[in-house]
Amino acid sequence: MIIVLRPDATEKQINHIIERVKKLGLKPWVSKGVERTIIGVIGEEDTLRIQPLEVFPGVEKVMPILTPYKLVSRNFKKEDSHIEIGNGLSVGGERIITMAGPCSVENEKLLIEIARKVKQAGATVLRGGAFKPRSSPYSFQGLGEKGLKYLAKAKKETGLLIVTELMDTRDMALLEKYADIIQIGARNMQNFNLLKVVGQSKKPILLKRGMASTLKELLMSAEYILSEGNFNVILCERGIRTFEEYTRFTLDISAVAAIKALSHLPVVVDPSHATGKWGLVASCTKAAVAAGCDGLLIEVHPNPEEAFSDGAQSLLPENFASLMQDLRKVAEAVGRKI
Amino acid sequence: MIIVLRPDATEKQINHIIERVKKLGLKPWVSKGVERTIIGVIGEEDTLRIQPLEVFPGVEKVMPILTPYKLVSRNFKKEDSHIEIGNGLSVGGERIITMAGPCSVENEKLLIEIARKVKQAGATVLRGGAFKPRSSPYSFQGLGEKGLKYLAKAKKETGLLIVTELMDTRDMALLEKYADIIQIGARNMQNFNLLKVVGQSKKPILLKRGMASTLKELLMSAEYILSEGNFNVILCERGIRTFEEYTRFTLDISAVAAIKALSHLPVVVDPSHATGKWGLVASCTKAAVAAGCDGLLIEVHPNPEEAFSDGAQSLLPENFASLMQDLRKVAEAVGRKI
Amino acid sequence: MIIVLRPDATEKQINHIIERVKKLGLKPWVSKGVERTIIGVIGEEDTLRIQPLEVFPGVEKVMPILTPYKLVSRNFKKEDSHIEIGNGLSVGGERIITMAGPCSVENEKLLIEIARKVKQAGATVLRGGAFKPRSSPYSFQGLGEKGLKYLAKAKKETGLLIVTELMDTRDMALLEKYADIIQIGARNMQNFNLLKVVGQSKKPILLKRGMASTLKELLMSAEYILSEGNFNVILCERGIRTFEEYTRFTLDISAVAAIKALSHLPVVVDPSHATGKWGLVASCTKAAVAAGCDGLLIEVHPNPEEAFSDGAQSLLPENFASLMQDLRKVAEAVGRKI
Amino acid sequence: MIIVLRPDATEKQINHIIERVKKLGLKPWVSKGVERTIIGVIGEEDTLRIQPLEVFPGVEKVMPILTPYKLVSRNFKKEDSHIEIGNGLSVGGERIITMAGPCSVENEKLLIEIARKVKQAGATVLRGGAFKPRSSPYSFQGLGEKGLKYLAKAKKETGLLIVTELMDTRDMALLEKYADIIQIGARNMQNFNLLKVVGQSKKPILLKRGMASTLKELLMSAEYILSEGNFNVILCERGIRTFEEYTRFTLDISAVAAIKALSHLPVVVDPSHATGKWGLVASCTKAAVAAGCDGLLIEVHPNPEEAFSDGAQSLLPENFASLMQDLRKVAEAVGRKI
Repeated sequence: MIIVLRPDATEKQINHIIERVKKLGLKPWVSKGVERTIIGVIGEEDTLRIQPLEVFPGVEKVMPILTPYKLVSRNFKKEDSHIEIGNGLSVGGERIITMAGPCSVENEKLLIEIARKVKQAGATVLRGGAFKPRSSPYSFQGLGEKGLKYLAKAKKETGLLIVTELMDTRDMALLEKYADIIQIGARNMQNFNLLKVVGQSKKPILLKRGMASTLKELLMSAEYILSEGNFNVILCERGIRTFEEYTRFTLDISAVAAIKALSHLPVVVDPSHATGKWGLVASCTKAAVAAGCDGLLIEVHPNPEEAFSDGAQSLLPENFASLMQDLRKVAEAVGRKI
Repeated sequence: MIIVLRPDATEKQINHIIERVKKLGLKPWVSKGVERTIIGVIGEEDTLRIQPLEVFPGVEKVMPILTPYKLVSRNFKKEDSHIEIGNGLSVGGERIITMAGPCSVENEKLLIEIARKVKQAGATVLRGGAFKPRSSPYSFQGLGEKGLKYLAKAKKETGLLIVTELMDTRDMALLEKYADIIQIGARNMQNFNLLKVVGQSKKPILLKRGMASTLKELLMSAEYILSEGNFNVILCERGIRTFEEYTRFTLDISAVAAIKALSHLPVVVDPSHATGKWGLVASCTKAAVAAGCDGLLIEVHPNPEEAFSDGAQSLLPENFASLMQDLRKVAEAVGRKI
Repeated sequence: MIIVLRPDATEKQINHIIERVKKLGLKPWVSKGVERTIIGVIGEEDTLRIQPLEVFPGVEKVMPILTPYKLVSRNFKKEDSHIEIGNGLSVGGERIITMAGPCSVENEKLLIEIARKVKQAGATVLRGGAFKPRSSPYSFQGLGEKGLKYLAKAKKETGLLIVTELMDTRDMALLEKYADIIQIGARNMQNFNLLKVVGQSKKPILLKRGMASTLKELLMSAEYILSEGNFNVILCERGIRTFEEYTRFTLDISAVAAIKALSHLPVVVDPSHATGKWGLVASCTKAAVAAGCDGLLIEVHPNPEEAFSDGAQSLLPENFASLMQDLRKVAEAVGRKI
Repeated sequence: MIIVLRPDATEKQINHIIERVKKLGLKPWVSKGVERTIIGVIGEEDTLRIQPLEVFPGVEKVMPILTPYKLVSRNFKKEDSHIEIGNGLSVGGERIITMAGPCSVENEKLLIEIARKVKQAGATVLRGGAFKPRSSPYSFQGLGEKGLKYLAKAKKETGLLIVTELMDTRDMALLEKYADIIQIGARNMQNFNLLKVVGQSKKPILLKRGMASTLKELLMSAEYILSEGNFNVILCERGIRTFEEYTRFTLDISAVAAIKALSHLPVVVDPSHATGKWGLVASCTKAAVAAGCDGLLIEVHPNPEEAFSDGAQSLLPENFASLMQDLRKVAEAVGRKI
């Protein structure tokens, strides 16, 4: 922690801060320059971080040296984490894991049809929402437990693993029962009670980046889960909110390499939600694979005209199959498999 | 709803869309121009809104005519809503309601001390968090029910009403018991299950705008609460996330007049969270009153150096008292009281 | 400057950086903590700032201590600058200077009509663009020199001072001749050649914040002008680009107090461009005055239906006059005159 | 153009608008729905676009149907444009054009050394700034004409084409003489006088997207150049400004496919400026190629520690050569050459 003092800071103010630092059991050092005096405290920064040093008289600004997350950081663990998800598969290794399916679970027959098609094309995980976070109270809110049961049937029929979203702490037992991977949606990335609840599980957690969350905040939210004991966290870049209106969100492709620099956790990309337009999904998915992502989350629907939600960003099964063909080549070009 | 067709849309595609609209029981009209054909459907737009018309072949874009919210809109109710909060006070009338207090409830003695001071300065509601949404799992997470009990004592001592935050559907019964106004924080503005739960209450709800939420989305989230039966909603502008780094968020002062143009609900401003710097709070609070807000949410702490959270943005009680003096003049200048 | 080293930085790397700092004639100090070593260099930071220290092996990040601007900073000059603009008026003193008029100069008769009306209502400066930056090549581009001549006539008729925009270094001589205040528009805030040219003038310069510029960048652009010798700079907050779509831009009201904390230069607010909606202008203008701005830039047009540009955000002269009445009360409430 | 009326619009107001539309020689049609009346005008939308219809009494909002750009649009020209840049090369065809070199031209010897190395690695265009837009007046501002002469020498030595930036209308003659491709930088994307000047040239223009510009605005700025007669425009995505702080800007990878959907012009990606961190450049460059870009703009410097500008985002020549090897595989995977 570096505490930068104002040019007019008095000796008394400086001593007051030094005393405070010492009282916390830390060792400050002081450096007086021509234009500014600064006080440094290295190590044990966490103790100091929660002190509102900015309000001490004479302080101009406070600059942390260390990252506020520990367990998720690359410094904590040098090697890439491989998150085992079942069926002998893991996210974070050579193979890119493709999670595909409809936005919402709509009915059993349709879900199984989609599951078969995405499996045939190469997907290994079926996505589908039973609990749906919708911005309008008048929109379809999901089938709830019935949707989870359909997912279970689709799993039984096809062998695909299931990823589906948890929205409420009260539904955790249900998700434990039905999901192979529990998704925390973008709108709940800072629903800290939900993070604590999934942190007490052993299930793999797919944590989606909030639409206005920095990478640091994403990693802090992941830290919530790890600090509760669950290290099986998969991060997901799904587009951030910007001023651009043509796309629904702006896919932050640099997040793939950035997360890998900062953390040992694997990163998955969701080009469907990021772009909001099916016509842009293929280009962005190829980009994600080339950038080095560990998995994909793609919406597929055989009849987008009839989809209950997000039809505009869903690929037809035949387009998805064709995209998977292209992705095999791109994956191979960057030394991966899909 | 206006459906704009691509220049190369075929007759067959156009007829397919028309059939679909008719099947929904709606009446489309078609207008063929030199460069584009468009299909219009007016009235009952909601039925159509949930159809993914963008994916129909031949469609270039779809433009809604009506707002997606109803009950919160100014069209639904012309007069300003006055939300009664207790003690004969209401938010939305001539008097601007000042809610002040510490970020977190820390201990009983301190809370009562602050309560007395903000009351003396003119505040009518005590704010203070018992459940705290903190970006780090290692930060102080709030006292929970104990904090609520301290708030109850402060209320008993001072007569101030209590506003405090609900973070988890499981805590609703507690909040019903202790809070006069239940706050939904910015990070939970799209926690739709939480919105449904407070929608089933009769308590006034203070709904804070999400840091990356448009005004439309804020109103949609309010619509969740009203559509469940609770019309006692107070909206709160608390700063949005932008590229600017000097302030914690960017206070969207135009939101005050904009919300009043779009909705009948009252609007409160939180300059403390918006700026994140106590030195900017006075200027922004005066601006909020001049802009026409119905209430204020201000952090006050007698010893920011020791505050458990957000010390940097808290005013000292004496600065708060002095600000209240200034605000009286500004409120009078715009025909209000405080 | 604080140079934070990576946990795995070697002695050799650390010595390499120290040597580099010494070679520049500066004195580094080294502090070894448990988790990180840091190297500090205080004073003469500018010499170091232009070194790409981030690329030195072993470096994790580099954090500047001092602001990159000097002449515009509050540290350089403690007292508020008062910029004399003519007619015995100055921007930055007790009196708030109101600059009002049409977006574009359209014709002589209309301009003089508007000039008379805004003067009568209390404006002291006439605004109006002769050179117009328009996003479409097919939109009205301004009358050029003819427009400047009309402004000169309006000045002669009414005694109002003139503020108008410079878009091209080639037009500087013209602007020197006709303008009392030369405006640099938001789109040219980082047109550094233009900044250098107006820096060599003695005219007051109204520098508008770029739509995606931080306050630091605004101050850096002002520094360009001051560093060329022209200290007569007035800063202007005119809304920044955010994700919100209801308003044209988001007025950053906290910029008023923030700029005054960082700089001695006066700050003017343009609520017309910020909101893009005349219905929001009155609320935001009152907010700007209450926040402590030194001037206002407001679009007024007697017939917005016929305006060549920005009609949607222009006030009618009668609304402007009524707003000025309201502003007098708000200004008085915060100890100012208008 | 769709004009949506307020629910309380009167017959008189409606007729007033209809009269206005007719006076412009256009044919309006009116559609009365249960909740709203709308007036549509299709075709010749440009005539109407410049009318401030929002200010007509009774109007709620105005929604354009057509894009405001013509010549750059995919509707105007179905086939991809191939922009010939010299040496038998063109941007927009099967081959991806790599433009590489230092941020600034620093001296002749170094420039030629870099030119040789990037050529050897596969680049076909040398980039390098002689006029530099720097946010600080105290930073290196470029060598000016001397820099252009060094570029000419490097071209003579290596045969590489030259791309370099124009910042001032007064320097156009110089750029015509020395540049094969004239770059308009992000900060000048809406410097409309500069756009007009390059529009009167026949040289290929590399137009970089402004850091806060929408794709629509980028296309409008390109329209300025085409409307002056120069159809040789290459668009460049170089990152947009968002709230994320880890990267310098956020690379909008979806812009590649989006621009190709909206326009016939080729699109180049600059991962160096977008990320601001050399460690992220390789990942993002591979993503750009996989996404379908037509060219790359990459900063290369043999000694970033000594670079006059942007050292932190420059690749070493050996890293650039290695990246080019990787890109060959990715390009091939998506049916392109590099």
